[in-house]
Amino acid sequence: MILIMKPRVTLDQIDALKSDMTARGLIVQEIQGETTFMLGLAGDTSALSVDMFVGLPFVERVVKVSEPYKLAGRRFHPQDSVYEICGRVVGGGKLTVMAGPCSVESEDQVVSIAREVGRAGAGFLRGGAFKPRTSPYSFQGLGLGGLELLKRAREKTGLPIVTEIMSQEHAEVFGKEVDIIQVGARNMQNFPLLREVGRLGRPVLLKRGPSCTIDEMLMAADYILVEGNSPVILCERGIRTFETATRNTLDLSAVPVIKKRSHLPVVVDPSHGTGYRHLVEPMALAAIAAGADGLMVEVHNRPDKALCDGPQSITPEAFDCLMYKASALHKLLREVAGNHGNHGSA
Amino acid sequence: MILIMKPRVTLDQIDALKSDMTARGLIVQEIQGETTFMLGLAGDTSALSVDMFVGLPFVERVVKVSEPYKLAGRRFHPQDSVYEICGRVVGGGKLTVMAGPCSVESEDQVVSIAREVGRAGAGFLRGGAFKPRTSPYSFQGLGLGGLELLKRAREKTGLPIVTEIMSQEHAEVFGKEVDIIQVGARNMQNFPLLREVGRLGRPVLLKRGPSCTIDEMLMAADYILVEGNSPVILCERGIRTFETATRNTLDLSAVPVIKKRSHLPVVVDPSHGTGYRHLVEPMALAAIAAGADGLMVEVHNRPDKALCDGPQSITPEAFDCLMYKASALHKLLREVAGNHGNHGSA
Amino acid sequence: MILIMKPRVTLDQIDALKSDMTARGLIVQEIQGETTFMLGLAGDTSALSVDMFVGLPFVERVVKVSEPYKLAGRRFHPQDSVYEICGRVVGGGKLTVMAGPCSVESEDQVVSIAREVGRAGAGFLRGGAFKPRTSPYSFQGLGLGGLELLKRAREKTGLPIVTEIMSQEHAEVFGKEVDIIQVGARNMQNFPLLREVGRLGRPVLLKRGPSCTIDEMLMAADYILVEGNSPVILCERGIRTFETATRNTLDLSAVPVIKKRSHLPVVVDPSHGTGYRHLVEPMALAAIAAGADGLMVEVHNRPDKALCDGPQSITPEAFDCLMYKASALHKLLREVAGNHGNHGSA
Amino acid sequence: MILIMKPRVTLDQIDALKSDMTARGLIVQEIQGETTFMLGLAGDTSALSVDMFVGLPFVERVVKVSEPYKLAGRRFHPQDSVYEICGRVVGGGKLTVMAGPCSVESEDQVVSIAREVGRAGAGFLRGGAFKPRTSPYSFQGLGLGGLELLKRAREKTGLPIVTEIMSQEHAEVFGKEVDIIQVGARNMQNFPLLREVGRLGRPVLLKRGPSCTIDEMLMAADYILVEGNSPVILCERGIRTFETATRNTLDLSAVPVIKKRSHLPVVVDPSHGTGYRHLVEPMALAAIAAGADGLMVEVHNRPDKALCDGPQSITPEAFDCLMYKASALHKLLREVAGNHGNHGSA
Repeated sequence: MILIMKPRVTLDQIDALKSDMTARGLIVQEIQGETTFMLGLAGDTSALSVDMFVGLPFVERVVKVSEPYKLAGRRFHPQDSVYEICGRVVGGGKLTVMAGPCSVESEDQVVSIAREVGRAGAGFLRGGAFKPRTSPYSFQGLGLGGLELLKRAREKTGLPIVTEIMSQEHAEVFGKEVDIIQVGARNMQNFPLLREVGRLGRPVLLKRGPSCTIDEMLMAADYILVEGNSPVILCERGIRTFETATRNTLDLSAVPVIKKRSHLPVVVDPSHGTGYRHLVEPMALAAIAAGADGLMVEVHNRPDKALCDGPQSITPEAFDCLMYKASALHKLLREVAGNHGNHGSA
Repeated sequence: MILIMKPRVTLDQIDALKSDMTARGLIVQEIQGETTFMLGLAGDTSALSVDMFVGLPFVERVVKVSEPYKLAGRRFHPQDSVYEICGRVVGGGKLTVMAGPCSVESEDQVVSIAREVGRAGAGFLRGGAFKPRTSPYSFQGLGLGGLELLKRAREKTGLPIVTEIMSQEHAEVFGKEVDIIQVGARNMQNFPLLREVGRLGRPVLLKRGPSCTIDEMLMAADYILVEGNSPVILCERGIRTFETATRNTLDLSAVPVIKKRSHLPVVVDPSHGTGYRHLVEPMALAAIAAGADGLMVEVHNRPDKALCDGPQSITPEAFDCLMYKASALHKLLREVAGNHGNHGSA
Repeated sequence: MILIMKPRVTLDQIDALKSDMTARGLIVQEIQGETTFMLGLAGDTSALSVDMFVGLPFVERVVKVSEPYKLAGRRFHPQDSVYEICGRVVGGGKLTVMAGPCSVESEDQVVSIAREVGRAGAGFLRGGAFKPRTSPYSFQGLGLGGLELLKRAREKTGLPIVTEIMSQEHAEVFGKEVDIIQVGARNMQNFPLLREVGRLGRPVLLKRGPSCTIDEMLMAADYILVEGNSPVILCERGIRTFETATRNTLDLSAVPVIKKRSHLPVVVDPSHGTGYRHLVEPMALAAIAAGADGLMVEVHNRPDKALCDGPQSITPEAFDCLMYKASALHKLLREVAGNHGNHGSA
Repeated sequence: MILIMKPRVTLDQIDALKSDMTARGLIVQEIQGETTFMLGLAGDTSALSVDMFVGLPFVERVVKVSEPYKLAGRRFHPQDSVYEICGRVVGGGKLTVMAGPCSVESEDQVVSIAREVGRAGAGFLRGGAFKPRTSPYSFQGLGLGGLELLKRAREKTGLPIVTEIMSQEHAEVFGKEVDIIQVGARNMQNFPLLREVGRLGRPVLLKRGPSCTIDEMLMAADYILVEGNSPVILCERGIRTFETATRNTLDLSAVPVIKKRSHLPVVVDPSHGTGYRHLVEPMALAAIAAGADGLMVEVHNRPDKALCDGPQSITPEAFDCLMYKASALHKLLREVAGNHGNHGSA
């Protein structure tokens, strides 16, 4: 941490600050610029916050040198995390696809979609039982009944299930019944929920909040990881910008940025990320080309009748076609990466 | 609701859609543009979602004509809501000021700050017991112990307390002990929490999410209001933009926009909204000039030692000065509004 | 165009408006919702602006039904535009790559880079002679001297040149000497420059402004196209958002959105779009997977010594590797598209 | 400037860098953190760019310590700039109001509006002759003919005129005829135009670009100031965000931020900043309360018939009312500032 002083700082102020920092076990170094005086703080600075210093009347600015997350970062965990979840490998060069309806609506619906996405090659069934809706007047999901239907589909197809938890009160049942617990974008910074989910020890899919930076997502992952080291999969699903042609702006550069900063696998949701069916396939392929470990795709047998998010759901036929292209693309990228390493990285 | 058709729509498709809508009790009207064909839907369209239609292959675009919120809106509640909370009037031309430390740290701290802000004219004591922090390694607040200290400060000063709820599990205790329950910006779309808080029947301060539109805030208010009509106070506290000179971009135009759309009182938080102490006073005064019903201000007796958000806290002396100016400004605005109505409105 | 009336509109106001519109040769239709009254305007509404109506005290909201651009749109030009520029085909399933240094620095530099990018398969040499720099104290490019060096490189390698125009005063020389005239992001809405460039009749590369929507880019393209129908290539290069991990947020979903709305070819600039060298290759591949017609890439033989934008330039070796992967990917995508059409589109 | 090294930097790399920097006349200091090694560079670092170092494979991050603008900043010009323009004082505690029609439409229109705004207390007449319009099909202004009408209005009312320059080709005529030359938001980073305008030596009103930071605006001001020190007035007019309730998000916190960083006067444009007439008055008053030196307001005698931006124009009556309130507010703020200094500043 580096403290940049204001021009009018006095020697007394500097001395007082130095003794305070030394008393906390830190090493303090003076740095003299042409017009600016700075103090460098070394040692365990994780107990210090930028706020403590910005408040001082003689400090101009504070620069954090180390990243604000620990468990999600590569510094102490340089190799990629690879998980085995219900017999499926996630990360490590595998392509993981989670597909299914936005909302679970009926047994028929979810079982038939599960069969179709499984046949096309999806590894996991995704489906919403509890639905976070902007308006209280919109369909809110079938709740625990929906979870039962997902379990029924799992029994009949063997596909493990991914579904969103919206409230701590369901932690116990999710901990027992759900294969990958999804924390939705709006809950990415619901810290009590993150902690509760972390305590369950089950795999977690953490979606990026629409106004959250990548570093904030990694700190949110740390909230889960500190509770006991559950497998955590990150999910880019679009951020909020001024552009209105898409529901969100899918930030695919987040994939290589996360890959550089973190060892956690990262998947991309082109359905929520764009909001329109015709954008799902191109953005799914782009996500794989950008290096994503997988996809999360909304598939509905009657998208025009879907109770939720119909416009962004694709049909099972379109999903089949997408899987064919995605697999071919994924295979090719592994081959060309074998022939030529990435010369572009620093 | 108006459905704008694609150029290649067939008469059969239009007829099928018309009978479906008529069967739902809606009135359907054909609208013929030069190059575009449209259908207008009248009747109770609140059960319809835009999604249902955007999913149809022959629908180009859907336009909602009525606003998506009901209870928070002025349509069915044209006059301003004015609340009496613990003997203090909120809304209706009164200036409500909530002030206190970001985090409750000790009895001494909170009682002494409460005394000072009360003396300067604050109507409510605000203070955090549960703190949502981006990093799991930051100070997370004293929790229920902090709530006890706030109650102690209330006893000693008579100031009612405003504090943030972070989890449904604390609903009961907040329902009993807290005068105004704050729902924080990160929880603005934590829908189970909104419902739970709505059931308590206590006054609620709802902060705007950093990437939420004004209409989304009004829908979030509807989540609370449908549960039993608790008093709801809205709070603008800054949105997330590309500008880095401030912590958030305080959207003061939200004040007159909300005033036009909603009957709920609205206060402004210039401390979180800017992140810097020297911006608190100018933005507090600007908020009042923009028509806000009140302010929420962080005050700390030793801002440089604050365990949280020190850089944006002002001292009791600065708060006293702010209150002097704020009151003078509020008084003047009421006078000039009396002399000259607002000719600017449509 | 649909005008949604306020609840208190009078019949007299409606009648006056209707006669005014009829006098302008428009067909006016009344639309009655349950609680809302609307007027639909058909005919040539391009002379009307939303502003004209929003100003009326009894109009609540105005909805434009047709898109605001004409020449760039698919409505009157449904098939893709394919251009032949200096013997190279742009659009129509070809992959166009423009590569070279951010700034032209010396003859040696630009010729040697041109040779290397040409050998690796680039179709055009890009290089900056006039550089728009945020700070007046940064290197501003070699100006017309830089253009001479680009011409020298073209002579020696046969690569046509792409370079940015910053001022109308250079229109004549650019019109004579430059193969593709680039209009930079900051000038996307410099309307006199757009018109001037449009009059030259040369191919134009139009970069998206960092805070401009896709529709605004298409309207900017119309400014060029109305002057005489120059070939226009659009370029996505990132938009400004709150995320600080990248220089801009590269909006790859813009590619399929533009493809649907416009017939113009679209290329992607992953160098400016991300700002970091290690993100160039993954985002270049992602752009191709998203359906882009080409790439614009900064290549520098000594990126660590570059006078401008060094951190985002890749070496000729990295570019060679990128081209190998890009070509393999592009070929594969054409093959799989042949086998399976895109079932995803509406 | 501080260079933060990557963990794997070698001593040879550090030595090479140190000799390079020493050869440039800089003083290099080693800074050792617990896990990180850094180099501090002192001396005249204005010739160095962050880019030069980020490109190095062993540099993790670069931190600039001094601000990137010089002439616009307070460091070498601590006291406020106060200008006298055509006998009117701008800055220094005076309230400067520029008012008039968005577009000049006819002599009658502009003279009559000029008379009314002058009578209400405006110090300058603003009006557009050249209009930057997003669509090429919208009214583009009367051009030089519009300028003639503005001059006519100046003759008849004595009000100096403010109007926007859109192209370098008009520099000469603007330099002779216009009292304050406006550089519009879309041209804030049109660097050749900034330089050209700077050379004229006339007062300039520089509007903030919709996606430009405050620091970028100050660097744009430096482009003008380096050419010969013209009087520069900054104008906040809203930035682009995700919120759609307003045309832009008026960033009033920019006012006190600019005041702290720069000595230049700053005015606020609540008309463009919000896009809606009913928001003009509250945001104008808020701007004054935030410390703005003035306002720029669109006034039209028939806003519903305005050829441009009608919805955000107010009538002369509404302007009169606004001026009455604005003056009372400005007077009060000067009084209370006299009684109580600002205790809030660090």
